[in-house]
Amino acid sequence: MIDILDRVRNTELHSKIVTADVAAQAIKPNMNVGISGFTPAGYPKAVPMALAKIMKETPFKINIWSGASVGDECDGELARVNGIHHRIPYQTNGDLRKGLNSGQIEYCDLHLSESAQLSRYGFLGGKVDIAIVEACAITENGDIIPTTSMGNTASYVQSADFVIVEVNTTQPLALEGMHDVYVPLDPPNRQPIPVVKVNDRIGTPYIPCGVDKIKYIVPCDIGDDVRPFKPIDEDSKKMSEHIINFFREEIKAGRLPKNLLPLQSGVGSVANAVISGFVDSDFTDLEVYTEVIQDGMLDLADAGKLKFASGTSFSPSPDGLKRLYDNIDEYRTKMMLRPQEVANSPEVARRIGIIAMNTAIEFDIYGNVNSTHIMGSKMMNGIGGSGDFARNAYLTCFFTTSTAKGGLISSIVPMVSHVDHTEHDTDIFVTEQGLADVRGLSPRERARVIIENCAHPDYKPMLLDYLERAEAATKKAHTPHIIEEALSWHDRFIKTGSMKK
Amino acid sequence: MIDILDRVRNTELHSKIVTADVAAQAIKPNMNVGISGFTPAGYPKAVPMALAKIMKETPFKINIWSGASVGDECDGELARVNGIHHRIPYQTNGDLRKGLNSGQIEYCDLHLSESAQLSRYGFLGGKVDIAIVEACAITENGDIIPTTSMGNTASYVQSADFVIVEVNTTQPLALEGMHDVYVPLDPPNRQPIPVVKVNDRIGTPYIPCGVDKIKYIVPCDIGDDVRPFKPIDEDSKKMSEHIINFFREEIKAGRLPKNLLPLQSGVGSVANAVISGFVDSDFTDLEVYTEVIQDGMLDLADAGKLKFASGTSFSPSPDGLKRLYDNIDEYRTKMMLRPQEVANSPEVARRIGIIAMNTAIEFDIYGNVNSTHIMGSKMMNGIGGSGDFARNAYLTCFFTTSTAKGGLISSIVPMVSHVDHTEHDTDIFVTEQGLADVRGLSPRERARVIIENCAHPDYKPMLLDYLERAEAATKKAHTPHIIEEALSWHDRFIKTGSMKK
Repeated sequence: MIDILDRVRNTELHSKIVTADVAAQAIKPNMNVGISGFTPAGYPKAVPMALAKIMKETPFKINIWSGASVGDECDGELARVNGIHHRIPYQTNGDLRKGLNSGQIEYCDLHLSESAQLSRYGFLGGKVDIAIVEACAITENGDIIPTTSMGNTASYVQSADFVIVEVNTTQPLALEGMHDVYVPLDPPNRQPIPVVKVNDRIGTPYIPCGVDKIKYIVPCDIGDDVRPFKPIDEDSKKMSEHIINFFREEIKAGRLPKNLLPLQSGVGSVANAVISGFVDSDFTDLEVYTEVIQDGMLDLADAGKLKFASGTSFSPSPDGLKRLYDNIDEYRTKMMLRPQEVANSPEVARRIGIIAMNTAIEFDIYGNVNSTHIMGSKMMNGIGGSGDFARNAYLTCFFTTSTAKGGLISSIVPMVSHVDHTEHDTDIFVTEQGLADVRGLSPRERARVIIENCAHPDYKPMLLDYLERAEAATKKAHTPHIIEEALSWHDRFIKTGSMKK
Repeated sequence: MIDILDRVRNTELHSKIVTADVAAQAIKPNMNVGISGFTPAGYPKAVPMALAKIMKETPFKINIWSGASVGDECDGELARVNGIHHRIPYQTNGDLRKGLNSGQIEYCDLHLSESAQLSRYGFLGGKVDIAIVEACAITENGDIIPTTSMGNTASYVQSADFVIVEVNTTQPLALEGMHDVYVPLDPPNRQPIPVVKVNDRIGTPYIPCGVDKIKYIVPCDIGDDVRPFKPIDEDSKKMSEHIINFFREEIKAGRLPKNLLPLQSGVGSVANAVISGFVDSDFTDLEVYTEVIQDGMLDLADAGKLKFASGTSFSPSPDGLKRLYDNIDEYRTKMMLRPQEVANSPEVARRIGIIAMNTAIEFDIYGNVNSTHIMGSKMMNGIGGSGDFARNAYLTCFFTTSTAKGGLISSIVPMVSHVDHTEHDTDIFVTEQGLADVRGLSPRERARVIIENCAHPDYKPMLLDYLERAEAATKKAHTPHIIEEALSWHDRFIKTGSMKK
């Protein structure tokens, strides 16, 4: 209890310290609840768990608006008691996923940069009623020092009628000063977001809140539910090699500076593996402007190759989190967390010219990408920030292994079963087979480069056969398709368990 | 000849005045030719026609990079002599369309805001070799006063090795001062685009060029090939009423200011009709931040309802063009033309919070939009600026009549045959039947609102039947589809000439 009293620096606020069970009672049916958290980092734990207990006794539902996915203590617990009516903007939890693929939960899959502004505009059904926020500490003025993520927390706190703060004593106080909090004004009053370099500081190191808005303070000692990455496999190594070779050629051609441009890389094992590939490369002074700072970024920093990394969340593995905490004074000189409205800002992404590297579920021969749906219907996770970056990047790159399910699925198909990124936005495709550079090409040109360089040998002849027959059937229309057959590979998989004939 | 000498204000440059036939000889096979023009406005006419004559005798091909579509004197003439190898970023010409739907021309359909930067980055296959630019006049310093469009002209002039200027004596000199020329630096040196209000002036009234870069000056007296709009029909009037009623409700709900936010409206008759609807409304002080300024905007100005309109092109009907020219001193106080990098800038669109209103070919029950392809394969025109606006707007609205081809095609389908705007980006759908507001909804919720409010009664039961069977087949997956059947409506149309069973 001493630690928490130290962390609540305004002694007047000490009277608001309550248990999670007490605080959770402030959450009423149908409320729009804005929570901190982006990936399993910096999300509230004690209050959602206490709320789930209440809901188990007296069932009701709330709407959960977060930064992105959060840990099982929130999404899992609340989904299992059927306590979520509406969920935005991203999720990765198994039980929550079940709920939104069975008609139990209404999920609106949003671009992460837009979710806070949509909530402020009143476009999501009312405004934020209450914010539940994890903090390292509360300042003398009642302002909030965030923990391992920024997400949409500052905007939700600004909009909420009142705020419940979970002061998490497992989060090191040394995180203080690593955040740069900036919430843009809304149209017609918005001004340029003044980030010009990845390390530009444009806001405050705390979330403005104020003593009066804080309703309850809850101590919490549960750490972030971070997950280990899959070991870096041969396929990931090959993808990493392909993209690094491509960058070398672009530098030679004068189309990239020798320390590249700010890198963005998606969440998860493949993205992490690609970034790790830079550790053994000859690139130096690398800059990162991304969502999540994972182990690969720490490796880059440790190898002396990282100039600066800006993100909205620290989401490393358990080992990586320990490494971050143990060396935080070193990392804090090279890393900063921003609200996702700024980290994922289309304006900033286009201005600074990021290199966007994200994972696809599948892409098609014409360059459209599916990042979200399995066989067109079932939601996997969500689009996350990939759209924010893909459509505004200097170079937009998508990665996937050429097959899935032991070869039964081709990740390159005649037509994707769901489109998250259109042909207008994609530049570079990478599989373990190779890299396709489709910049400036017409659809029929793109198809040949993608099939030749990215498809698995088992599927290459089938894809070429489709393309040639579609060209014949449409007399070489701009984007030749045999509509009857365009989704037949998915249909075959659904019916037979394999895309192979 | 007196007029052209007056318009070329640096007398040294008078020696560079030649005929179009002479100037056209500077254009060599495989050159990347950057041209002025955006819609049939402000594009070169004499030199492309002379070039087509040369190509007819000695066939060769060039690559044409424009602002958007241009008139028949350029796209039509060059397509008919098979003189175009590669074409970006947009087109509307019948003969050119035939070429790119028959394997004759490689067309890369680009977001209009991106085309200039992609050419500067070297991503389209080299840089601009030569620019051909229509001008009102050339200044004492050899800088260029554009005519009825800005497009990508300033960027192409900046990148080109040399420039051919067509001084068009049909274009009134009073256009001088209506342009605001600004070309951003490229990453890593780009700065914020400082437009905060629609009438902010951030650049110069001329295109920087310089005496030395001008190779030839060609007199031209052919006017812009502007086209009449279709008469405003009952369906368009209904769509206009639906959106205006919606705006009224949004103002009441506090989600829009009473003079709305800056309006963007697409190219063509439907968009023009929607804007015309505002003339008889009670809205005042309207602002416009868009691509093309058409007759509807002139009507708004004449009705005293327009505060300011920023665009990249004047593209009215023949009558509208006469009206513009006759009253240009009045209109110049309320209108400005910007480069399309600024007019269509994602950064500016999101900052000022535009209301984006564009036309769809078809949309699906889950909110995905096809703006470009007929039955999945054949290119109609291109995405144009619709993506620049749709993905960054405060409100993203798409318009189409609920059926086409006399009812044989439903514009609302189970799954679109091509995706240009994803479910993540669309807010409002309007047909003559009604308006669907899908903000914040899950896909299954969206489907019901779209079918109920927008579909034609002939197709409503078929769409509902599909939705219900897809929900059953997938046990209410997030986005229920029967993959085998998702494109069957298009397939049926291709085979039977009707989407009806």
